[in-house]
Amino acid sequence: MTSPDSTPSTPADRIRNAVARRVPGRSLEGPFYTDREFFDFDIAAVFARQWIAVAVDAELPEPGDRTSVEIGPYSVLLVRDDEEKLRAFHNVCRHRGARLVEGDDGSAGNLVCGYHKWTYGLDGRLLHAPSQPAGFDRACFGLAPVHLRSVGGLVFVCLAEQPPAGFDEAASRIEPYLLPHDLSRAKVAARSELVEEGNWKLVMENNRECYHCDEHPELLRTFFPTYGYSEADIPLRLRPAHQRYLRADAELRATFERLGLPYTLVEELDDRSTAFRIQRDALDLAGESFTPDGTAACRRLLGDLPTARLGHLALHLQPNSWFHVLADHAIAFSVLPLAADRTLLRTTWLVHPEAQEGVDYDPDTLQRVWRATNEQDARLVALAQRGVSGPAYRPGPYAPTEYQVEAFCSWYIARLREELNR
Amino acid sequence: MTSPDSTPSTPADRIRNAVARRVPGRSLEGPFYTDREFFDFDIAAVFARQWIAVAVDAELPEPGDRTSVEIGPYSVLLVRDDEEKLRAFHNVCRHRGARLVEGDDGSAGNLVCGYHKWTYGLDGRLLHAPSQPAGFDRACFGLAPVHLRSVGGLVFVCLAEQPPAGFDEAASRIEPYLLPHDLSRAKVAARSELVEEGNWKLVMENNRECYHCDEHPELLRTFFPTYGYSEADIPLRLRPAHQRYLRADAELRATFERLGLPYTLVEELDDRSTAFRIQRDALDLAGESFTPDGTAACRRLLGDLPTARLGHLALHLQPNSWFHVLADHAIAFSVLPLAADRTLLRTTWLVHPEAQEGVDYDPDTLQRVWRATNEQDARLVALAQRGVSGPAYRPGPYAPTEYQVEAFCSWYIARLREELNR
Amino acid sequence: MTSPDSTPSTPADRIRNAVARRVPGRSLEGPFYTDREFFDFDIAAVFARQWIAVAVDAELPEPGDRTSVEIGPYSVLLVRDDEEKLRAFHNVCRHRGARLVEGDDGSAGNLVCGYHKWTYGLDGRLLHAPSQPAGFDRACFGLAPVHLRSVGGLVFVCLAEQPPAGFDEAASRIEPYLLPHDLSRAKVAARSELVEEGNWKLVMENNRECYHCDEHPELLRTFFPTYGYSEADIPLRLRPAHQRYLRADAELRATFERLGLPYTLVEELDDRSTAFRIQRDALDLAGESFTPDGTAACRRLLGDLPTARLGHLALHLQPNSWFHVLADHAIAFSVLPLAADRTLLRTTWLVHPEAQEGVDYDPDTLQRVWRATNEQDARLVALAQRGVSGPAYRPGPYAPTEYQVEAFCSWYIARLREELNR
Repeated sequence: MTSPDSTPSTPADRIRNAVARRVPGRSLEGPFYTDREFFDFDIAAVFARQWIAVAVDAELPEPGDRTSVEIGPYSVLLVRDDEEKLRAFHNVCRHRGARLVEGDDGSAGNLVCGYHKWTYGLDGRLLHAPSQPAGFDRACFGLAPVHLRSVGGLVFVCLAEQPPAGFDEAASRIEPYLLPHDLSRAKVAARSELVEEGNWKLVMENNRECYHCDEHPELLRTFFPTYGYSEADIPLRLRPAHQRYLRADAELRATFERLGLPYTLVEELDDRSTAFRIQRDALDLAGESFTPDGTAACRRLLGDLPTARLGHLALHLQPNSWFHVLADHAIAFSVLPLAADRTLLRTTWLVHPEAQEGVDYDPDTLQRVWRATNEQDARLVALAQRGVSGPAYRPGPYAPTEYQVEAFCSWYIARLREELNR
Repeated sequence: MTSPDSTPSTPADRIRNAVARRVPGRSLEGPFYTDREFFDFDIAAVFARQWIAVAVDAELPEPGDRTSVEIGPYSVLLVRDDEEKLRAFHNVCRHRGARLVEGDDGSAGNLVCGYHKWTYGLDGRLLHAPSQPAGFDRACFGLAPVHLRSVGGLVFVCLAEQPPAGFDEAASRIEPYLLPHDLSRAKVAARSELVEEGNWKLVMENNRECYHCDEHPELLRTFFPTYGYSEADIPLRLRPAHQRYLRADAELRATFERLGLPYTLVEELDDRSTAFRIQRDALDLAGESFTPDGTAACRRLLGDLPTARLGHLALHLQPNSWFHVLADHAIAFSVLPLAADRTLLRTTWLVHPEAQEGVDYDPDTLQRVWRATNEQDARLVALAQRGVSGPAYRPGPYAPTEYQVEAFCSWYIARLREELNR
Repeated sequence: MTSPDSTPSTPADRIRNAVARRVPGRSLEGPFYTDREFFDFDIAAVFARQWIAVAVDAELPEPGDRTSVEIGPYSVLLVRDDEEKLRAFHNVCRHRGARLVEGDDGSAGNLVCGYHKWTYGLDGRLLHAPSQPAGFDRACFGLAPVHLRSVGGLVFVCLAEQPPAGFDEAASRIEPYLLPHDLSRAKVAARSELVEEGNWKLVMENNRECYHCDEHPELLRTFFPTYGYSEADIPLRLRPAHQRYLRADAELRATFERLGLPYTLVEELDDRSTAFRIQRDALDLAGESFTPDGTAACRRLLGDLPTARLGHLALHLQPNSWFHVLADHAIAFSVLPLAADRTLLRTTWLVHPEAQEGVDYDPDTLQRVWRATNEQDARLVALAQRGVSGPAYRPGPYAPTEYQVEAFCSWYIARLREELNR
């Protein structure tokens, strides 16, 4: 709290100064997590510029299906058109701006505004606007399109007119890992929307380390707590788990080689606009799924996979998503900013399209571990938000095992620099 | 969402630029509906300058009656004084600023502050302030008066020191339409306060067109859906209704002529400070009232009216009110801004002072159509507010039948220009 | 509400102008109570600079006890260390800023962050941070200390690096009044936290006069309503009470002299940074306590006091506290700002450490009068907040009996001037 005289005069100045002060290896200064103007700038520099994970193909299985997703102040409408292609539009009528679709809005041949019945096709064209004068040109009032890409069944949109380069190349490297799981034809078994009381970056940072994993007893049944540690840094108490990991890992590699599944780690988290990390990794106990004994939660496996024992394919993308893709099911997480101190976490569980609830899988068992883990994380994020909101907070040092948190912050600061230099 | 560097430096600059960019015939840009500073400027330029409809005489029938109404950040106290004259004051004690009256506060001879018992007369004079030193001059601490005018039983206040010219002239043209209904001696049968989740201008704009009237099935039993259409623009599907309208209208005109009731349309919605529209107009079916079959909702007619079949006298005023005055009852609507995205709609139903509830009218029947219509409008306003709040919203074109929406916006923009040029 | 053009360009300008306009003897202008930037400046100029009453020793009786208190945006952690000394720290982990302790957090040997298990001693030293690299210097990451002083059992903290001068001198004059009541060894009998819907200064101003005491029927059973009146100004209706006061006061003075208890009034409310008022004063009826008949609410007296009939020791400090210390119990009040229009009032009731609930005192009886009084005050503060929030509010004149309100405002304005001149 300083005398108002000392405040720089514009938000851009304040952000520029805070970016310039950023010390690599340390957490970000408080205003990045709490200030309304920093939040607005995050929307401009990150969420309105980058490719943002928002959904999975399986949420819109049929032509005419539509849903909407909020990205900060933007509302984006997703539809599957008559040619089964996914499309995205700004979710706002071209007449007087009414919102077109709220949440999931079922399925129908056209998109009809609820205010004055302006009617759009699934391709966004304005088909009908009642009582217009001669000379009214419908072609001028189609829905504003938003870039959309589906990568192995995962849906990304980009609000920028000119999306950042490099997405196609990243997608082409990620897709081979995903295709054996055939997520684009999967079925949504469950969804959850959890509002966390913290800045979106705290939600992401929390996801990028297992330094806090003692708080996740359910997850740690099968998730190796050594995740993120270099061999040399593994604490003594985690050595037994590490021994189990090494055995499971060796066995898995043999399986991957035998089945021809890509599995090697690619980690490019902070040196490119479309930054990501992908890896097939072992799970503990039965090694199949996030269950108390590690056995599969769904009897029907994804795609045509011949064995349940594939560990998990972990995919992390900047700025807002992660995915766990297993043999029996997959889970998609996307982080959507609501306000400087509030964030929505959307979680979607996918199974084989012919897997039957109650027969092949119990939905409670399927969701239990990650519902618990999400709630635990939300508590930690809220604790962090309250702490960094005070003037006494000072950025502190990341431990080596938090290197992916550092990578996230470094990627993020690079995006702010880009935006400040536009 | 733009880089903060591009933001003009003061709110006045931003408002001035947005006003300059306004395209006639199109809806307003997003910040007019969502921005806190634009909202504050609306209060300064419109609600603190213009004559604002806030109540009806019948809400304060007896000397000593008082009520309060909030106009944005202002609280105005209305009282009927000992000479039965209505007066308005700023609702704030001259001692340490405590609010004097909250909501309806019954009736009493004086106005006593609940904090330290400073006591004011109904004329605003400070009568008593306990424990003051010699030399304390009570005459310096009377309540601050607010301009008040009653027009045919409808109460308007003006917060400006110097009210805008033209109100008296407008009142003198409106009053002859109202006087036969004798609203100043009417009785309040019901009141409702509905908080709508949208900017006050969206509430007004929604009121100024029937392009959306398909959403109002109860209202459309008797309200002709052709309202606002020019003869040439009436859609085919509304032609049968229009034929009924023409017959009802011809019959009504004969009645008005026979009874000597003024009925011609005056429409001066955007070329003057006190802008209004007034017209006697037909209703469908029995043509008497807003009921399922169009028959009167109250058996005792207002004033000394000799017939229930008078259609409705529709009065619209800028910036914040409309009225439906029928033979059997009248309804007053006033729109009061709470925040950029929240608005209070006050609705008051009036009947003859001797009409007995349960005998002459059923209060549920009396209110049903406009309670339903208000709720439907609130849903549409919320839909519009959510849409225009996103950065992707662009002003769109009004249809010819929305000409009164355009007139409202044009009047409003003229008021902002006046304020910016002060 | 003025045109935005007329707004000075920075918050400091606006505050400086408002301070310059302040008229002694009149209430403060509206923005001091309602504006977010003025509120932030209050935090900087007052709550982050001055000694702030936050707790009593008795809330942390044992080594290892800890609690936290929020001072505006600051969270302060209070602990009693192994040497039984009270200490205060900023309640934020030095790693990634998580809040360390929420509310009362029981007792334990160390302070362990709930996020990544960084562990601090009760002296604030970082004892353990898991998985750090060689070269990590724990000595650099101890908890940030906050100045703490206990005065006769009342706990004050100062967030400034350099606390204001004069506190020790004030403490040395206050402590002799308090010591006979031995509050540092007392027991907490009850606590309440009441959120008032008003600015912190309205809560303080309300406490500093009895001009409104007609609103407190329970309190006025024993509290003389003449409090704050000069002899000459006492209204006629209060003369009988004043006669009783004079008799009780004469008797009490004899008791104080006999027992050697300091009792004379010290009133230095606006001419120093650590400003205060202290006085032993009479109570009505039995003269012992705040009960319907004035008899003690707790049979076991504080310290070794030989008689219950000691009236009340009233201690007021700027900016945020007052205390009533009686023979049988004591009550501490501290006012903590939450937002421009919301304030927390913490009230703590203390009794002798060996007094037994249900035997020596009934907790409901003990709290009844001040719970009722606090609620009544909260209603008045809310009334004032609503009134001063409107643009029509103008500062009004204080009556002579409100001289302590004027002293508070004068002290406050002096602090703002100091801060503006830094």
